[in-house]
Amino acid sequence: MSNSSTIAVDAMGGDEGLAVMLAGVATARRRFEGMRFLLVGDEAQIAEGLKSHPNLSQASEIVHAEGVVGASDKPSQAIRRAKTTSMGIAIDLVKQGRAGAAVSSGNTGALMAMAKLALRMLPGIDRPALAAPLPTLGDNDVIMLDLGANTEVDARNLVQFAVMGAAYARTILDLESPRVALLNIGSEAQKGTDEIRDAAAILRGAAHLPLRFTGFVEGDKLARGDHDVIVCDGFAGNIALKTAEGTARFVADLLRRAFTSSVRSKIGFLISRPATELLREHLDPNNHNGAVFLGLGGIVVKSHGGAKEHGVATAIGNAAKMVRADLTRRIADDLGNFEKAA
Amino acid sequence: MSNSSTIAVDAMGGDEGLAVMLAGVATARRRFEGMRFLLVGDEAQIAEGLKSHPNLSQASEIVHAEGVVGASDKPSQAIRRAKTTSMGIAIDLVKQGRAGAAVSSGNTGALMAMAKLALRMLPGIDRPALAAPLPTLGDNDVIMLDLGANTEVDARNLVQFAVMGAAYARTILDLESPRVALLNIGSEAQKGTDEIRDAAAILRGAAHLPLRFTGFVEGDKLARGDHDVIVCDGFAGNIALKTAEGTARFVADLLRRAFTSSVRSKIGFLISRPATELLREHLDPNNHNGAVFLGLGGIVVKSHGGAKEHGVATAIGNAAKMVRADLTRRIADDLGNFEKAA
Repeated sequence: MSNSSTIAVDAMGGDEGLAVMLAGVATARRRFEGMRFLLVGDEAQIAEGLKSHPNLSQASEIVHAEGVVGASDKPSQAIRRAKTTSMGIAIDLVKQGRAGAAVSSGNTGALMAMAKLALRMLPGIDRPALAAPLPTLGDNDVIMLDLGANTEVDARNLVQFAVMGAAYARTILDLESPRVALLNIGSEAQKGTDEIRDAAAILRGAAHLPLRFTGFVEGDKLARGDHDVIVCDGFAGNIALKTAEGTARFVADLLRRAFTSSVRSKIGFLISRPATELLREHLDPNNHNGAVFLGLGGIVVKSHGGAKEHGVATAIGNAAKMVRADLTRRIADDLGNFEKAA
Repeated sequence: MSNSSTIAVDAMGGDEGLAVMLAGVATARRRFEGMRFLLVGDEAQIAEGLKSHPNLSQASEIVHAEGVVGASDKPSQAIRRAKTTSMGIAIDLVKQGRAGAAVSSGNTGALMAMAKLALRMLPGIDRPALAAPLPTLGDNDVIMLDLGANTEVDARNLVQFAVMGAAYARTILDLESPRVALLNIGSEAQKGTDEIRDAAAILRGAAHLPLRFTGFVEGDKLARGDHDVIVCDGFAGNIALKTAEGTARFVADLLRRAFTSSVRSKIGFLISRPATELLREHLDPNNHNGAVFLGLGGIVVKSHGGAKEHGVATAIGNAAKMVRADLTRRIADDLGNFEKAA
């Protein structure tokens, strides 16, 4: 019982430093009643940092780790040091069953490699996928995967991503039968690569799964709220995700330029500020933080390297939701049902 | 001499109809002194439409075509009817030397297939690529290719795209030695597919070319103005382009919602309207219209299917600039120099 409300946090990973990580955990602690935390990293530094968060101290335990995985460390280097780094030990706490999930803002490639090795893949899964919720014009976020774990995939991988993404959407978005689409360069049946067309054919025939296959979606319709899950290979997913981030920032920069171009526009901006603040809130990546590696035998959540306190808390909240909903078992069950029917 | 100032226009293609195409040509005619136009399509309808544009009548000639390529026609269907459709005849006028370039807002796949067949590829080119200028925060647009002509490519294709894109940037952006980057999912040398890494190795060694290879660029940095040409396969390019379009529209929709959420914000919006109009102008796709198929033995420009009068004029202006700068010969020369040195 205890592990389902315990999250292991790599307190040393990320670009923002220990203080931001601890502040994020403290925020999560206030938001989610009854959670407990294993804070992994330099014991002295964490103990010192906890003095600013007496509330968190009561709900957490420090697990000492000597080392830290560097932002540019290769996965192979990280694996060799898995037993001594805060990231490696956080993952190991999930493996041991002492925590229900691990959360890290550190090096993505290292996190993935260590998690694969320590937690293994679910039966039938060839490759895990990185999934994250993105903002839309609709009521819900949309889950997109793979966001960069696999640069090349086959049709079977894409179908597994669809099944795992749907299980994730059922858990995180509370949807019964998520609408799942494949990212493609056109909506017509003959568009795209062989892998995508073959995956579509399999998904069209998979009526026994708790998902609705909605066909192909193009890059300009990702945020319209017409789909709950969007599936692609990790190359396309990474390009789409980063292009969306970059374009949102680009438009915001242009807007800032426009609003500061004259006294008149500055005044207008100040008057409508509450409205633009709402927009900022909606687009703030900290409100959509927490990508998860799906397909592993345990939950490992990747928080954005630059996540602030609020973003870290969002990622931890997502991790807690996945643990409580028993996401790993749900994915394993769905995959089992899919394989049985296939 | 005459053909270098003559543009063949598929007057019947596009979603906006003949009247918009003719208005666009008329605008281009006012902007570019000394241009002449071959207007291809239904003679009676064009003659009727020209009554609203007496200035254009003097500078144009109607070339009758019975048929029109439909938006959902397959390339193979279009090729069979090439001799009778406005799109096919416009391309043929380039082949005959009667026009320096053809411009169409019609079906992209059909345009590409017919152009390849009629105009052939330049010596040494395996595949043509679709290239277009996109807005940035910098002084210039950035040229991106391939935007969807080839879903799968090898390293040699990518290198050819780089050489062709650089020649295009020299022509359209008036740059001496354009900065060329490969789109990738990370900036480190080991990131991405084999094709991308191999292409990077070739480009790093190509010091004799009139371009500067600037390495890998990620999706969030496309619009920063740090590069003049961005090279990728047609799948990634299509995803990036459409995701950028969709995200810009998404942010604009959120902004509209925010500004109309209260009386206060509406007032602020009205006051700063001149500023937001500037932004709209900068992002208006009509100001960045005109994708070109590079690598063919002639210039064929694809105008956006939904382009308005102003967008059609932009595409024609780009086509005129390419013709006057002798783009086809420049690309052939650069490719020849590259092959010689390789």
